[in-house]
Parts: sequence; structure tokens; C-alpha cells
Amino acid sequence: MPGRYAIGVDLGGTKIATGITDLSGNMVARRFVATDAASGEAVVIARIMRSIHDIIKEAKVSNEEVAGIGICCPGPLNPETGVVIFAPNLGWNHVPIVAHIVEEFGIPTYLENDANAAALAEKWFGAGRDVQSLLYVTVSTGVGGGIILNGDIYRGRNHMAGEIGHAIVQPEGGERCGCGQYGCLETIASGTAIGRRAREVVQAGGGQRMLELAGSSEAITARTVADAAADGDADAKAVLERAFLYLGTFIVNMLNVLNVEKIVIGGGVSKLGESLFVPVRRVVDDKMSDVPAKYTPIVPAETGDSVGILGAVGLVVKAEVRVG
Amino acid sequence: MPGRYAIGVDLGGTKIATGITDLSGNMVARRFVATDAASGEAVVIARIMRSIHDIIKEAKVSNEEVAGIGICCPGPLNPETGVVIFAPNLGWNHVPIVAHIVEEFGIPTYLENDANAAALAEKWFGAGRDVQSLLYVTVSTGVGGGIILNGDIYRGRNHMAGEIGHAIVQPEGGERCGCGQYGCLETIASGTAIGRRAREVVQAGGGQRMLELAGSSEAITARTVADAAADGDADAKAVLERAFLYLGTFIVNMLNVLNVEKIVIGGGVSKLGESLFVPVRRVVDDKMSDVPAKYTPIVPAETGDSVGILGAVGLVVKAEVRVG
Repeated sequence: MPGRYAIGVDLGGTKIATGITDLSGNMVARRFVATDAASGEAVVIARIMRSIHDIIKEAKVSNEEVAGIGICCPGPLNPETGVVIFAPNLGWNHVPIVAHIVEEFGIPTYLENDANAAALAEKWFGAGRDVQSLLYVTVSTGVGGGIILNGDIYRGRNHMAGEIGHAIVQPEGGERCGCGQYGCLETIASGTAIGRRAREVVQAGGGQRMLELAGSSEAITARTVADAAADGDADAKAVLERAFLYLGTFIVNMLNVLNVEKIVIGGGVSKLGESLFVPVRRVVDDKMSDVPAKYTPIVPAETGDSVGILGAVGLVVKAEVRVG
Repeated sequence: MPGRYAIGVDLGGTKIATGITDLSGNMVARRFVATDAASGEAVVIARIMRSIHDIIKEAKVSNEEVAGIGICCPGPLNPETGVVIFAPNLGWNHVPIVAHIVEEFGIPTYLENDANAAALAEKWFGAGRDVQSLLYVTVSTGVGGGIILNGDIYRGRNHMAGEIGHAIVQPEGGERCGCGQYGCLETIASGTAIGRRAREVVQAGGGQRMLELAGSSEAITARTVADAAADGDADAKAVLERAFLYLGTFIVNMLNVLNVEKIVIGGGVSKLGESLFVPVRRVVDDKMSDVPAKYTPIVPAETGDSVGILGAVGLVVKAEVRVG
């Protein structure tokens, strides 16, 4: 029975997660290995190949039964040529990863950046199953995004669409971002930014509950801030409120510009749950006029830790749907 | 020779502009009449019908030679049902204008909001002829936008996409907007906002060159501000700089999110020319990392005062292309 399975590879700076699923995204097997990026490009590529071989063996399927292989990693990359243009966390520069995989396995292979793949995972297997358009927002150490329009990834001219983390939400002033600019969304709304601001507050003598919970100011994370806020710490509440004011306002703007059917929020910080969704939804309610786009559902991602694998699998599934 | 011509109707609060063109957008004849919205819906509809009859007569064509009629007006409206949902400047509420026109002329008729139509005008007949995706930004009394993706208007779920004027660019503080919110892009970057801020500066004793040029603080417009800035008035320069800092930053964000092939800026304030384009391009150059999307051309609209008529004509042309 040819093409019943899809393989998804989520290539990260620290680990390679590989999964094999049926074409409905049901996981048959999943494996994790360390990326070992420090050992160089050839070693990482060999580990990817090994992972794919192993997962095929573990699932007891033949290569012929695999409809395709999807792989996702941080960009910039070119999904059309299958080349990773630049991946600082891998030390990669113009690596034709798709060609390598096709040569090894003879199976159709697809490449996508991880934020776009995550959006696709949610569209096919998560919170966006019932819609044809959505904005996926990931809030973790950074902020990223992927746009689904007409049921497929919207990439834009240079495969750069959805780069919401570096949207500038403070045109005047604003903290310096890792990208070199000032006032990017991720300097305010990322988990890193929430933790950093909370540590500043604690070091200035505020937010005592955060300090109690974390043990030291260095150990404070976004989770600590949310827990302290839930315990009534006013400083912790203020830190979260500011982060989600900017995140919510940015979502208002995206609703006005993109007018998609759903906003799906994933990433580590989204695990704060209602501590994030309640204030973000309130900002949208406050800051948007009474137009239809205001009533767009803003919901948690559903694919969890498998988001990368399932996004990569989604690349295979959508190619199959197109063929079929 | 059937279908050689298209009629475009630009329905505004003060005037109705009607034009007939060939399918390449070459204007054969053009007419303007007052809208006379105060006299009520029936009068305005009658004036639209009369304008279309007159332009057909003036162009000496038969109804059969007209491929279609396009009409654009401020939204919200439903392009699929052809109903103007609410047009405060016309006093219209759920007016099935397309059905009225089809009944009168028996010619296929298309409705679109004016910002989307303007984007389409630029795509077919203006600065966007060579691209398949663009963001059209109009800066006049307000700020509006229209998005072209894959060569066609991108409308979003509720026909609301591209509502950039009410993107909130000052999440904290910000002036109150006509929409009831605070810190919308048009409270800072519109011609109205530029004029208002300049008048405040003059009333506070600054910007003397603006006062000299305009004669009185009440007479100051965005044009006055640009002229005074060109004459070296530091206060006028600061007013423009702030407006275009926010406009330019918003464009940075749109480049990151939409990654379109071109940004086209039209509307009355765009007639300031280099006084607008130089600072806006500089902001994009300053505030964007060295990624491909940074090098997107930001250019003036080319369809000028015919933008509404040509946008409406564009609705006909794209329907013809789809059929053909």
C-alpha cells in the first residue's frame, strides 16, 4: 500500500526530532537524538539520515510506503530549492539538505522554516483544522509567526512572510533586539523579555513573590512571573500585563491587516494558558472597534511538543492532497 | 465587438466620478457629478444610473460593447453579494447597489471598497503593473490600505483585510482616533494628523514659517508643513519626521509580515513626493535588518485622480481575464 505514511524531521540546534505518522498525522513512532551541531555539517546530516533510517525500521514500513519526508528548521531557507541558506544554530551555510535526503532515500522531500511548518501543523492536525486561514504565533525564547491563507503556507516574495518577531512595536525608544534593531515585538513579548524585565524589577527591590518562587533573581522565568502574578504579586502582574498589551495590540493589527479566521498561539510561553490568553483577548476586546474581525477566535496551539514533526509531516500531506 | 469597454464608478461622499475605458485602462470619457447624499438614497442611485447612461452615450458605444461595470465606495460592503452594508458619508445602510445597476443595464457589475479598488488600479494600470503582490497605502485625510496577492485583491475572512489605518502604533498613550480607539496609525500619519499637530505647534508659538505660508494657523495643511520644512523650519521638519517615522515603521512591519513585491503609496499626502518618500525609505533602511524584504521598492502611486475609476475598471478587467 504505497504512500500511507509520512516522515517529519524537526531539526533544531540541540536535538533532531523525527516522527513517522499516517497521513492523518497519527504518530506511529518518534525518536530524538542530539543534533551535535558542534561536530559540523557532515555529522548533523549523517544523524538526520540515521534517524530517518531508524524510524522507518522501527515503524516496520518499506520506503515505498512512505509518501514523503518533510524537514523543518529555523530559516532563512529556500523551500523551492530545498536549501538551508543560513542556520546560525547549526553553523550551516547553503546546505542542500533536500537533495541529500532524496539521494539517500529516493523519497519526495520538502523543506520549510519552523514557524511556517508550525502554522501548517496547526492547520492540518491542530487548532486550525476547521479553517482555511490563520496566523500562528509562537511565543517562546523569541516570537515567530506563520501565515496560512487558502489552506496553505503564505510565504511571500522571499519566503519571509510572517516574520512577526521583528515587527517594531516601539518606533521611539524600545530595547535593543538580538537582530540589532530596537523595539521589536520579541524585545517585549517573548519569554526571554518577560524574564529579563522581571529580573530587573526584582533587582530594583520589587516583585518579592517572584524572588521567593524562583530562589534567586537569575532563576526567574516567564513561568515564575505568571505564578507570582497568580499569587497576587502586583509587580509580576505589571510585567505580564505590559508584555501582553504589546502582544495583544500586535494581534489587533494582524486582525486588521490579515483578517484571518483564527489566531493560534503556541510556544513555551503559551503554556501559561489563561495567564496569557485572558489578557491578550482583553486587549483585543479593548483595542478593536466593533467590526467582524474583532470576533476572531484566539486559541492555544494543540500540537504541543510534536509541532515540528507534525509541521514537517504537513508538508508531505499537503503535497499528497495536491497530487490526489 | 462585444466587451471592448469597461465602466468604472467611483462613488464618494461629495462626488460621483464615472469613466469608461478600454480593457487596458485607457480613458475614453470621464464625468463628474455631485453625489447629493443629503437628498437620500434614491437620488444618489438615480445619479449613478444617469452617469452610466451618459457616459455610454458620450463614448458612443452600445451596452453590448461594455464588458462590465465596476463600482467602488468606502466600506464596509460585501463584494460577493454586491451590497453596501454601511456608508456613513452616503447615509446608506444595506443598499444592494449591484442588483440595482444590473437591473438597469443588464451588464455584469462588481463592487469593491475604495482602498482595495485603488490597490487593484495600481496593480493593473499603475505602479504595480510588473508585480503580482503589493501593499497599497493611501495617506490622505485618513490612512487606508489594500493588499494584492497572487495578482488579485486579498480580502480576508470578512472582506476587512488591509485595514491599516486602524492598526495601533502606540499601544500606550496615543491620541484618540475617529474610530474611538487610541494610537491608530491615522492619528499620527494622516494628512489630518499632520495638519493638526502642526497647528498645535504654531499655536504654542513655534513653526513660524508654517504660519507665514498659511496665513493663519487654521489654514495649515500637510502641504504647508512640507513647504515650511523645505524652507528650513525645524518645527515643521519635526512634525513631518514624526508622522513618517510611524508610517515608515508600519511599512517595516508590513514588509516583515506580508513580504510583498512592492509598496505603493497614494492619496493626497503622497503628492508631497520626496518630502514623504525620502524619510519613509530612510526609516525602512534604518529599522530593518539586512534581509531581502528590506529591499522592496516603495514607490508613488501612478493612477492619480483616476484611481477610483480605474480601480472599478480593474474589477471588470480581472473578471474578464478570469473568463478569458
